[in-house]
Amino acid sequence: MVKIGIAGGSGYGGIELLHTLLRHPTADIRWISAQQHVGKRVAELYPNLRGFTDLVFSPMETLPANDLDVIFLALPHGHAQKVAPGLPPGLLVIDLSGDFRIADPAVFERFYGFPMAGAEVQKEFVYGLPEINRERIRTARRISNPGCFATATILALYPLFQEQVVRGPVFVDAKTGSSGAGNSPAAGTHHPRRANSLFPYKPFAHQHLPEILQVLGKTDNHLVFQTYSAPFVRGIFSSHYMELTERLTADQIRCVFSKYYGSEPFIRWVADKPDVNYIRHSNYVDIGAVVDETYLIVWSALDNLQKGAAGQAVQNMNLALGIEETTALTLPPVHP
Amino acid sequence: MVKIGIAGGSGYGGIELLHTLLRHPTADIRWISAQQHVGKRVAELYPNLRGFTDLVFSPMETLPANDLDVIFLALPHGHAQKVAPGLPPGLLVIDLSGDFRIADPAVFERFYGFPMAGAEVQKEFVYGLPEINRERIRTARRISNPGCFATATILALYPLFQEQVVRGPVFVDAKTGSSGAGNSPAAGTHHPRRANSLFPYKPFAHQHLPEILQVLGKTDNHLVFQTYSAPFVRGIFSSHYMELTERLTADQIRCVFSKYYGSEPFIRWVADKPDVNYIRHSNYVDIGAVVDETYLIVWSALDNLQKGAAGQAVQNMNLALGIEETTALTLPPVHP
Amino acid sequence: MVKIGIAGGSGYGGIELLHTLLRHPTADIRWISAQQHVGKRVAELYPNLRGFTDLVFSPMETLPANDLDVIFLALPHGHAQKVAPGLPPGLLVIDLSGDFRIADPAVFERFYGFPMAGAEVQKEFVYGLPEINRERIRTARRISNPGCFATATILALYPLFQEQVVRGPVFVDAKTGSSGAGNSPAAGTHHPRRANSLFPYKPFAHQHLPEILQVLGKTDNHLVFQTYSAPFVRGIFSSHYMELTERLTADQIRCVFSKYYGSEPFIRWVADKPDVNYIRHSNYVDIGAVVDETYLIVWSALDNLQKGAAGQAVQNMNLALGIEETTALTLPPVHP
Amino acid sequence: MVKIGIAGGSGYGGIELLHTLLRHPTADIRWISAQQHVGKRVAELYPNLRGFTDLVFSPMETLPANDLDVIFLALPHGHAQKVAPGLPPGLLVIDLSGDFRIADPAVFERFYGFPMAGAEVQKEFVYGLPEINRERIRTARRISNPGCFATATILALYPLFQEQVVRGPVFVDAKTGSSGAGNSPAAGTHHPRRANSLFPYKPFAHQHLPEILQVLGKTDNHLVFQTYSAPFVRGIFSSHYMELTERLTADQIRCVFSKYYGSEPFIRWVADKPDVNYIRHSNYVDIGAVVDETYLIVWSALDNLQKGAAGQAVQNMNLALGIEETTALTLPPVHP
Repeated sequence: MVKIGIAGGSGYGGIELLHTLLRHPTADIRWISAQQHVGKRVAELYPNLRGFTDLVFSPMETLPANDLDVIFLALPHGHAQKVAPGLPPGLLVIDLSGDFRIADPAVFERFYGFPMAGAEVQKEFVYGLPEINRERIRTARRISNPGCFATATILALYPLFQEQVVRGPVFVDAKTGSSGAGNSPAAGTHHPRRANSLFPYKPFAHQHLPEILQVLGKTDNHLVFQTYSAPFVRGIFSSHYMELTERLTADQIRCVFSKYYGSEPFIRWVADKPDVNYIRHSNYVDIGAVVDETYLIVWSALDNLQKGAAGQAVQNMNLALGIEETTALTLPPVHP
Repeated sequence: MVKIGIAGGSGYGGIELLHTLLRHPTADIRWISAQQHVGKRVAELYPNLRGFTDLVFSPMETLPANDLDVIFLALPHGHAQKVAPGLPPGLLVIDLSGDFRIADPAVFERFYGFPMAGAEVQKEFVYGLPEINRERIRTARRISNPGCFATATILALYPLFQEQVVRGPVFVDAKTGSSGAGNSPAAGTHHPRRANSLFPYKPFAHQHLPEILQVLGKTDNHLVFQTYSAPFVRGIFSSHYMELTERLTADQIRCVFSKYYGSEPFIRWVADKPDVNYIRHSNYVDIGAVVDETYLIVWSALDNLQKGAAGQAVQNMNLALGIEETTALTLPPVHP
Repeated sequence: MVKIGIAGGSGYGGIELLHTLLRHPTADIRWISAQQHVGKRVAELYPNLRGFTDLVFSPMETLPANDLDVIFLALPHGHAQKVAPGLPPGLLVIDLSGDFRIADPAVFERFYGFPMAGAEVQKEFVYGLPEINRERIRTARRISNPGCFATATILALYPLFQEQVVRGPVFVDAKTGSSGAGNSPAAGTHHPRRANSLFPYKPFAHQHLPEILQVLGKTDNHLVFQTYSAPFVRGIFSSHYMELTERLTADQIRCVFSKYYGSEPFIRWVADKPDVNYIRHSNYVDIGAVVDETYLIVWSALDNLQKGAAGQAVQNMNLALGIEETTALTLPPVHP
Repeated sequence: MVKIGIAGGSGYGGIELLHTLLRHPTADIRWISAQQHVGKRVAELYPNLRGFTDLVFSPMETLPANDLDVIFLALPHGHAQKVAPGLPPGLLVIDLSGDFRIADPAVFERFYGFPMAGAEVQKEFVYGLPEINRERIRTARRISNPGCFATATILALYPLFQEQVVRGPVFVDAKTGSSGAGNSPAAGTHHPRRANSLFPYKPFAHQHLPEILQVLGKTDNHLVFQTYSAPFVRGIFSSHYMELTERLTADQIRCVFSKYYGSEPFIRWVADKPDVNYIRHSNYVDIGAVVDETYLIVWSALDNLQKGAAGQAVQNMNLALGIEETTALTLPPVHP
């Protein structure tokens, strides 16, 4: 059994980790923390878990670092930078925040709004996107789990950029459900405002942009990345607009993606259009594309808490511990 | 022109007052306050009003009590009790909170959780439900505007209680939209929780219960009043279950209501079932009923911010100032 | 392996059966039908199942009755009455429609609007509510799966009626999500009408009422049963209002329920209030109650497609085949 | 008084016309038709209008063409082409369908899927976008009301194209609420599918594209136009992505728009970001933009049934009849 701790277990990312690991056959969740809920039972805060766990939220200070095989850090941005440096080298650390995703401290500070505390520690972290970094993840002991938008956009663009078939800028119009904002009530997730609307936020400034650029690498294709708050709870639907260097058929586009993702367990190429309905509560990413002469639209849809956060973190854990990669992650999406 | 002030103008009740009064031909809105937004333009906080008002939120202390004809108090519970005693006797004061609805201080404290500061002042207030209190409202200078649930339930039950056709307890199952909770984000209005669910709150303890009982008066019919948070933004749908003293036909029920509301401008008797869809953004209350032998269900549907708050407050203002009662309130409900 | 067929697999009930059985370790789904989609791949109609099944919808006529261990009938009301009589006696038949729930043909016709074709066959059917009928289900070869509302209300009332602690009528206010109406677009599930409203339907006439009465048995407590369309997709939240024969404390109420459900695997007694959020996509029923003097409110919440349909059908299959009852049904509810 | 008829009054466009005209001081609605509802009262089909109108749906054949000043055609695509040719030349005809928007019959057939019946008649029609065609509308007797998406996109791009500041392709990501699909239930507006999702439709093929291109005129800027179904009821939020020919500041962008729309009564330039919340149930279009070096995003938000259909049609009627243009159209947007 794998001994697991979850730091920051009361947020949506943390509780989704717990929910996912509860069906993992070799997971033994030993410890979970939540600074604001110390002493409270997890099932009291998340009554959906009544009868499934007796875990009680502990304070961060009680982290039994030496008695764990894995610690998931699901803390607000900035906290993991303080916690990670003190963790045992042999402990598998999987951080779900943005703290260790960005290599360049100046870029980090610009997008996150505070200095990067752990520039040295950051170098130890592998970017945990299995479809691109699988081999490095297998041997990593420090994994930085990608952002939800970043996962959607990198996976949509990576094959095209690798094949250098895009000309000029790429425009990304990425829509997210409200659970992406976490479980703390705020103006943008206040039901009277969120329920019947759609609105942009963070123009040209979303913190997932630099990690996308970092993974896609040197390119002449400028990326305009715009996020939107949409009135559903779960899911990201991301649209990517671009011009091709030359005419490609729909089948040629399909082949480009197949070359990179043909044997990927969690990427589904869809002949018809992706839809948030068909990836909900699962670790699958649906990718589809339409082409008209030299103009291409690529769509990706995923569950922001699964492939966009906790599901991918478990996928990374599986890889790093030599467990079958898809363990606990193969439930079909639910609909309706 | 009627010179009007709105205290607490940044909440949903306050801004709905402003929105409604903007189409009132004799309203001159002179002053609006919002403690947290002093100096901010109203249209900045509520961009739907861009181009419709140049008002800026003032601090409460600048209330020009002697230069106004009407002051609407749309403040959190407890504040009006502090403000009202100092207001000029000739100023028309319309309070939208619960502060002056309850005659008995002990009952007030039990339901509101704090002592009633203005027991003497309370006696000056007329309960502003025009369908029942119209003549007293016409001459009042202090009006306590009813609660949204209270309006829905009193109007559904009043004729039946007056006619004494109900036997035994009445059970009320009242569902409200999220705007009823105001514009401050909170757990119960957090979109990920509110959007796809329905849940009860305040069992046997909702603060609108005592004002309902007070208006319905001495009765042998016990009232069980239960409120629910429903996943829509605007509207209340209230179901009232009871047994009749004797069999009545659907038509006899209709006649009971017609006797009391036959000439009411804002009550619509519906042969078919009420629906939140058909009263939204209007001051109308739709009431319908179905009967099976001696069992009766009465339904009422209204917009919690209009007939349940600001619309009714303007109706009260019109009455108290001798303006045509329906002024600014006759827009048809919007659907879809 | 259990060889399984699903008749009517393109509806929400049928597809939820498939979704549930895909994680059942001994289920071998051999055949699925859908009259309107013959020849179409299931995953084409329900793209969430891409990669999980190669099943193709067959016509009803190809039902391989002799090669199956179980046939689930998820057909529109009236169809199972035609199909069931011709099925082999040894085949386990689990019908999800209302066709075999009602013993009295006259009652059936009144509520379903057409004559009951299989009055003789109906006698062979056991009402598949395990919490009440478990032992009979174990040996049944014909099981009539309860209605979604009926499950919610019977489970909420059964212990109280058995203990005869209720005095006078019980009023049921039952709210359902839109998936309960099935996957055929209709006026009541048209998004512009359903999304922001709540409205009653079928007053005093819902077809689940007679099965509730049949199970609760002879009683002096009249049942008023009213259903509502609520603007969420999944779930039923049912409120039950009544007067008690004498004062009972909250703890006494808890004990009444504990006596009947104390060891039930899928019933969770909740100290706080149930919430649709906490049972979604699971086979669990959350039941809670509040009491004030002699007035009692009992709440039950369940997922209409799981415990209200497909989950319960699989639970019945497990029982009738001697498989561990909870197999494939113990995933925790999902939230957010 | 202006004598008005509405053909196709039972659809959302038709009923919104009626709703809007009910507050028009000089509108006298004489006749309304609905082929499927002949003989039914309008307020029976749309109970929100109970008490506001006694109109009954007539058959199309009873159109009193010679007794009307204005006829609004709110019929399904293809019908107006049959009706319009027979109407009196002096009658003001305002068609809300796509029948007369496209000058080129070949283009029409490609996008609408059937031949254009009225190529000659089409020439008589003026494209009813007041911000661009105001003077021609004033004297027109045949007006083709723009599509909802087309209004959002043309208004967002027209000033930029006139000033020739855009380089290369423009990508449009346009999200619509469900009311845009009309009042007939369909798969894409079925609540269980629509409520929690977002999905694209009609890639490269939406019928509003040709009217956008026709208005924007000869240009080297290719337009990629993609529509999405979003889970709200009212509103369009349209995002326009492009590269500029040279760096422009936010203020320079503002000035470009101000030059064209500075005195427009229904266009509001927003310093911050548009939001569907702030234009709902109004004829206003909110336009905003953000710029980063040479990359520009322009956003437009409008109510698809008001400025996107009925509101704009009334605006056109006002212009063509010499009535003050904004009559009946100046209610502020509603929020929450």
